[in-house]
Formats: sequence, structure tokens, C-alpha cells
Amino acid sequence: MTRTTLTDLDEVQLLDTTLRDGEQMPGVSLTPGEKVDVARELDAAGVHLIEAGSACTSEGEREAIRRVADEGLDATVTSFARGVKRDVDHALDCGVDGVNLVVPASDKHVETKVGSTRDEVVETTVELVEYAKDHGLWVEVLGEDGSRADLDYLERLLGAGLDAGADRICYCDTVGAADPERTAAVVSRLAELGPTSLHTHDDLGFGLANVHAGLKAGADTVHGTVLGVGERAGNVALEEVAIALGESYDVDTVELERLYRLCRTVSEATGVALPPNKAVCGANAFAHESGIHTDGTLKDGTMYEPYPPETVGRERRLVLGKHAGRAGVKAALAEHDVAVDDDELREVVARVKELGERGKRVTDADLLAIADDVRGRERERHVELVDLSATSGGNLPTASVRLRVGDDERVASGTGAGPVDAGLEAVRAALAGDDGDDRGAAPDGERDGVAFELDSYHVDAITGGTDAVVTVEVDLSRGDRSVSVSASDADITRASVVGMVDGLDRLLAAEADAAGTEPNAVADD
Amino acid sequence: MTRTTLTDLDEVQLLDTTLRDGEQMPGVSLTPGEKVDVARELDAAGVHLIEAGSACTSEGEREAIRRVADEGLDATVTSFARGVKRDVDHALDCGVDGVNLVVPASDKHVETKVGSTRDEVVETTVELVEYAKDHGLWVEVLGEDGSRADLDYLERLLGAGLDAGADRICYCDTVGAADPERTAAVVSRLAELGPTSLHTHDDLGFGLANVHAGLKAGADTVHGTVLGVGERAGNVALEEVAIALGESYDVDTVELERLYRLCRTVSEATGVALPPNKAVCGANAFAHESGIHTDGTLKDGTMYEPYPPETVGRERRLVLGKHAGRAGVKAALAEHDVAVDDDELREVVARVKELGERGKRVTDADLLAIADDVRGRERERHVELVDLSATSGGNLPTASVRLRVGDDERVASGTGAGPVDAGLEAVRAALAGDDGDDRGAAPDGERDGVAFELDSYHVDAITGGTDAVVTVEVDLSRGDRSVSVSASDADITRASVVGMVDGLDRLLAAEADAAGTEPNAVADD
Repeated sequence: MTRTTLTDLDEVQLLDTTLRDGEQMPGVSLTPGEKVDVARELDAAGVHLIEAGSACTSEGEREAIRRVADEGLDATVTSFARGVKRDVDHALDCGVDGVNLVVPASDKHVETKVGSTRDEVVETTVELVEYAKDHGLWVEVLGEDGSRADLDYLERLLGAGLDAGADRICYCDTVGAADPERTAAVVSRLAELGPTSLHTHDDLGFGLANVHAGLKAGADTVHGTVLGVGERAGNVALEEVAIALGESYDVDTVELERLYRLCRTVSEATGVALPPNKAVCGANAFAHESGIHTDGTLKDGTMYEPYPPETVGRERRLVLGKHAGRAGVKAALAEHDVAVDDDELREVVARVKELGERGKRVTDADLLAIADDVRGRERERHVELVDLSATSGGNLPTASVRLRVGDDERVASGTGAGPVDAGLEAVRAALAGDDGDDRGAAPDGERDGVAFELDSYHVDAITGGTDAVVTVEVDLSRGDRSVSVSASDADITRASVVGMVDGLDRLLAAEADAAGTEPNAVADD
Repeated sequence: MTRTTLTDLDEVQLLDTTLRDGEQMPGVSLTPGEKVDVARELDAAGVHLIEAGSACTSEGEREAIRRVADEGLDATVTSFARGVKRDVDHALDCGVDGVNLVVPASDKHVETKVGSTRDEVVETTVELVEYAKDHGLWVEVLGEDGSRADLDYLERLLGAGLDAGADRICYCDTVGAADPERTAAVVSRLAELGPTSLHTHDDLGFGLANVHAGLKAGADTVHGTVLGVGERAGNVALEEVAIALGESYDVDTVELERLYRLCRTVSEATGVALPPNKAVCGANAFAHESGIHTDGTLKDGTMYEPYPPETVGRERRLVLGKHAGRAGVKAALAEHDVAVDDDELREVVARVKELGERGKRVTDADLLAIADDVRGRERERHVELVDLSATSGGNLPTASVRLRVGDDERVASGTGAGPVDAGLEAVRAALAGDDGDDRGAAPDGERDGVAFELDSYHVDAITGGTDAVVTVEVDLSRGDRSVSVSASDADITRASVVGMVDGLDRLLAAEADAAGTEPNAVADD
């Protein structure tokens, strides 16, 4: 496709308001330390302006803003300030570089909310801009609810701000009510007055469409939040603005290859999960399951991707499920050093699809179990869970397991933060052979310790009630080998430990195969 | 704001492909029963066309499509079909009304993926359209990867489809690579040929912006999926298309007041969680936390909302946190029949903000505890957890609790699907007084049974490892009263039972207050 032109600019500035507008999201609250972590990542990615918070909120918030301001970042660090002198003073007190001065613009906000008049708001705005500039601050004047304001008044208000010395003005679609036509109409007039920013929300899904319309109409800076966190439906997602402008229009914003890392940092700090189907950061953004897509992607990486995952610091992922095709299954088996002939492949594909149709994610362990079965291998289990018991609820969650490891039976116990954590410790203890309780097992000296890493442990949100079936997904590794397993049970303890033991069993089987020590390691094709 | 015109049409048709494109999302697989449930909801909302699946995938998929086709829905039910006769036959076999015939359009797809030529693809397309029309099917021809195709060839290919009798053609931005300018350029030429649909993806975040551009350029139908489920970053979200067109342009699509219900149905069927900050369906879409926003919203519901929540079948929600203000806290206390004077309110607000700053969600129970403390009430607990023990991992998860209920101590046990479920049963048994183990407690006959409903039990996804702190949120009710509580602990059993008991305690306290039977029920203001 040929590149079209959206703006005359080579670069559009981004103002990140994750730490202010994003943090106003219900249920989200960042500690000063978390704010600093996010600010550092934003700065490393080259975000131009960071609105670090709202200094008027509380002493705790001011402390957080101060810490961000003291980090010596390249970005301009600002605080939100309402149209009252006290707020500007609070911002000054935090040592920020500038303020985002928000004054009411629509009649609804001027009259009903603030109980003021248009003239009074203009007067106050001029005074505050002059006051802030006199104190050396960079100043952006935002007309709150500007998209629903009378346009002549909005021009008068923001124009007065610029005349009083403001560095820039901002078009605010505070409630996400505007469409691209309205955005273009308003911004084209504001941009005549001076440098104009865009602040859009996603209540109608038009967050990015309005950024597009606003840049076309002459704006040069975009406000956004990472993951689109923010009140209601959130702000426009900063990572989408960056990738859309970069890929579609060759317009620079921030370092794209840091976007994924930035999204994860914000997800961890805010507790807002990455939706699987979200541009740039979703688990599936570069995953391919369906047969057609996987086949095409194996032939040419760009077949089903608009841009390579590496652009945003990620990797491509092929996953198996009901839409699995031959090419994808073959590639997945090859990753586990399993070769199959054509008939076997056909059968494995059919069984993978069947499992997928039952609504199951097909993990590595599932695929390998199917392949074993199709190839007629009566695989001996290397590790098996014979018995499990865990106590929880009291002060010292404790679990015990009885495992069969080869011909050996091992019993061990462990304590942990909860029943699952205790179960993991018990499994580790049994495998290490360091338990004090080894009835019927070989003497300790004859045992090999079996170490493993639990690379990830994930449980989807539980919403169905206390008796809901819980699906646990674990990734385990030993040395260079890794395996993904899932297990489901209404008992979270059982699902978790069964998953871990099954995964470990697969790792040990693969090792034995590779070492050629097992009868079934003789390749049959 | 004045309404602008996007299209000459009063109504835009929606084709829902949640059951096909949406279901290709990795990890998502719907059973035939789930497909029927979703299709019924789509039909009830007035979706015009439902692509029920891809008949070539498997016999299981055909069974599901057959069941949807046999439902007698008002919507036109279709199947996806690749450009091969076998796929059309499979669709016919399912009894659908029509097919979405997908043929390669870009050279990448024609040559690299399918290993064909442009001429061959045109020839096959004409044959298949004629074949499908001869068999009474409604036919839409989709040029796969059309946004990256040579536009002259795309016109020739889709024009040939229309000439052969196809009912409509579709512009496909298969990989979500197009920007609005490209979409407008392509669609304006296709719409000259005949009725044109839009199929957009969200890899650059431009899914809805491209729908906007495509409708402006002459398209009359939009493909989408509920929640934007689908491969990679997903398809454009059907609910966003509907609300954006309805609110911004007064263009009818489906019954908006059914959108939220539809989103929940799809979330439950697919297992894809509703992101909190998502338009229409997110938990926060109509929630207000910050002081400014809550205050404004209480004065005028439209202050911080682009449209009323009832439009999409929802209700407004005020929540408390670090940005809490006086108006919001006062309203929340009033909901629990708690009146405070000005000094007390100031103190409660300060403490709510303090709790919010520590990164906590402020639940009803938290607010009431703060209010008690501020009002100097030494509240007696009505129910208290003295001891808890649960076993899990084996065949019969069991829990026991010792509760103090008033002056009475009650011990009971219960079994359940897992440790949490067993814990809930034990609490219920202790409160009902039907345990067989009541050392040191009053005789059974003197006990009042205390019943309660667990309205919801929620645990956020667990990702931090097996020792991660788990936050459990429960909503409990007794009669007309309900209360929200959260509890956190690395031991999920303990967090869950503590949350339930704390919630119950709050409900009993409110009842006692209302009945005036407690010394501290004398209002102090």
C-alpha cells in the first residue's frame, strides 16, 4: 500500500496521562514507587510529556508527583490543575515542569458544575496562565468538555489562554461523545489559534478515529494512556496511536519496540489485565491458530500480519486448536523433536481439532499425548501423582504428595503461602528427595534430584461461583526444554498440582527420548 | 452537538461473525449449544446476518451450523466458504441461507498462499458464485486481503462475482493493515460496482475508523464481532459500531438496549473477560470514581457521560477510591442508611482516599468500617471467624470453621467442590446451626438460623506465581440488603472465607441497626 499523508509533521508529540487520567480509573491506584517505575518506562520509550498526577488530590499524590519530577527524565513532567490558584500552587510545590490547566468549556460544565459564567471562566483562566507562566511553568490550557462546548466560546476561552502566554491549548473530548466530523470541525478552528493537543476518550469507540481526524485538522500533540486505561471506557490507547501513526503514515512518536514492555509495566502496576484481543499488547496480537492462517504464516510471515511482531518488541506465536491444520501441527511437533509420517500427521490433526472443539486449549502436553497415542506408544509415565492432600485456611498452609518417580515412590510435604504454593513445595521436596518421610522408597542416597522451574502459573479470573471449574495453566522448564500444560478441576489445589506433575512428566520423557535411554525413543520414521 | 451525516442510509446492516471469525480466536471454542445461545441473542437484538461458522472445518462445526440454521431465526444465517466447491457443498449440507465466499485478492494470497494466478481465481469465483446461486444461496464475495490487493484487480475480481449473480461484495482488511484513507479509496470504487460490506480488523486500532471511512465511501453493511473477539487484535467490535452509528449519526443498526446483555452472553460463552475500560460493556463504562466526576454526575447524569447507560441496558455506578469527594461518599453512605455530619463526612472522605491511595478498592464494608470508626462507634462484631481449616487435593475437599455469632460459638464442617466451596458450606452450616459438633455453644434449639445469599464470587486472574496475593470479591445479600466486600491473602481459602464472614457481619449489623435492637443503633446525628 502506498503511504498517505495525515499531517505535514514528521513527528507527533505524545503526552501520556496514564498516571493521571489513567489512574482515575475505578479500582486503580498506584503507589509513588509504581508511578516512578511507569514514568521511567515512558521516558525510556521517548514519550515527550508525562502528566504525573493531579497535585490537588492529596499529600500522597503530591509526594508521588515530586518523585517523578525528581527523576531527571527527558520528558516534560506536568501536573493536572483545575482552574483555581491553589491547584497551580500545589503543582509548583511538586517541582513539575508544567501544568495541564483544565477549565470548564461547555455550558454544562461552566454553569451546572462550577456554578460560574463564561466571562468569569475566561477571566480566571487568563489570571492563572499569567500566574503559572510568571512562575516558570510550561502551560497547556484544556477546555473541559470542549467537544460539547459552543465553538465560538471555546475559541474565545482558549485564545485568551494563548494570549495570556500559554504554550498550547487542548481539544478535550472529555466524555468521548464526539465523532470525527465534530473533532475535525473544532480542531481546525483551534489549530488556527496556536499549537493544539488532542485529548480523546473511547466511549463510542472513536478514540483513535478522533485522533486521526484531529491530526488531519492541524493538531500536533496527542494525549493517551497505555492500554487505554482511564475513566469509563478509557482514553485512547497510547500504543495504538504510536503504531497507527508509525505504520500507516510514517509519522514518528515514540520507540515502537518498547511498546510491549511498556504495556506490561502498566498492566502490572495497575492490575488491569491485557485483553487477549488487543492491538500491540494482547496475548493473541501475533498468535495464529486457524489452519488457513497458520499455513499462510508459515509460508510468509506477513501473510496474516500487518507488521512484524518485532516492531513492538514481541514474537510470533503459533497455537493449536479446533482450526488446526497440517502445517501448524507439524511445526509444533517439530518444536518438540517429534517427527511423524503423513498418516500419523492426519490423525494427530484430527484429534487436535476434536480436542479444540470441546472448547479446550490444546497445550504442548495435549499435543504430545495425542502424538504418543497415534504412534502407538504405550508411554511409561516418568512421574505420576498418586496422592495429594493440602490444608489451608489456618496459619500454616501445608501439603503432602505421594509421587511415583520411575519405579520409586516418594512422599514429601511442604508448606507455603496457600494450598497451591504448599503443593508446589511438596512436589519439589519429593523430587529433590529431601523429605523426611520416605516409606517404601529407595534410600535417599540412590535418588537423583529432579529440579525444575515453574516459569509461569496462571489462573483465569474465577466468576462462576465457589464451585466453578478452575483452569490452571503452567509453563515448566528444565534446562533448554519447556512445556505448557493446563489442568482443570473445581478444586484449585488439585488442578494446580496435577498440571505441574503432568508437565514435569513430559519434560522428563523428552529428556529420556533425547538421551535414547527409553525403548520408545527409537524413531519410527 | 449537531448531528453530522455519515451515510445517506437510515439503517446500516450488521453481519455478526462472532461465531466464525470470533471463534477463530486462539483459545476460544464454542460448543453447538453455546453457538445456538449466542445466535439467539444476536437475533433477538436484530442483527441482520449471522455467519454461524465455517462448514469446511469439521463435522462438529457442521452440526453446530445446522443447529443455528434450524433455529428459525429472523437473521440470514450463513457459512464461511473458501473458494472451493467442496466448501459450498458443505454449507449447503448445513441448510444455511447463504455463504460468505472468501477468495484470495492480494498477490500475496493469490500466489504465495494459494499458488494460483489472478485469472484462475476470477474463473473459480465466477463458477462458484453461479453454483451457489443455482442452489438458492445468498452470496457475498469477499476478496481476502483486499486492502493490500491491487485495486484494479480487486475491482475485476469482485465485479466478476457480481456479474455472476452474487448479492454483494465485501472489502476485507483481513490483517488490519489499512488506514482510513486506503479504506475510503478502495471502498469508493467497490461501492460503484454494487452493494458493499466492510470487514475490518483492529491491529492498528483503526477497526472502527475504517468502518467510518468505508460507510462514508458508500458501503451499506458492516461485519463485526461482539467484544471484538477474533484473530490477533480481533475484529471491529459490533457493539461499538452500533453505539457509534446510533449516537453520532442517528443511523439504526440493532436494538441498542440489548447490547450489554449480548456482550455478557458472548463473554460467558467464549471465556473472554470484559475489559473494565471497554466501551458499552466494560465494568467501568458507566462508573464514576473521581471526586470531580462523581460530584458532576450527581448534579447532572450527562455531565460525564456521552449517553445514558440505560441506552445499552445498563445502570450508572458510583464507586469510591483515592479520588473520592464529599458528594460521592455522602451518596454512598446514604445507600446504607448512614447519616453523618459535616465534620464526620470530611474525616470519612479523608480515610477513604487514604485507603484508595494504598491501591485498594474501597468496598461497602470498608466504607462502613471507616464510618463506624469516625463516628466513635465501638461496633460489636455480629459474626467473627475464630478458626478455619480446609483440606483439598484429594477426593473430598472438606472445611471446618469456628464462628462466634453474638455470644454463641458455633463449630461446623462442610464438603464442597474445592476448599473454598467447602469453606462456604461450613459457614452456612455453622450459621444454620445444623452441625453435629457444637462444643461450648448454646443448645441447638436456642439458635436462630442465619441464611444469606452469595450473589457473586470473583477472583481476578492469578498471574504472579503460586505465592501471589489473591484478592477475592464477594457480594452477599439477605433480604433487601446487599453488601460488597473484598479480602486479600496468599491463601485463597482464607481470603474467600474471611470475605464471606466479614460481609455477613455487615449485613447483620445493618439489620440490627434498622431494628434498633443494638445499643449503637441510636443515631448520633
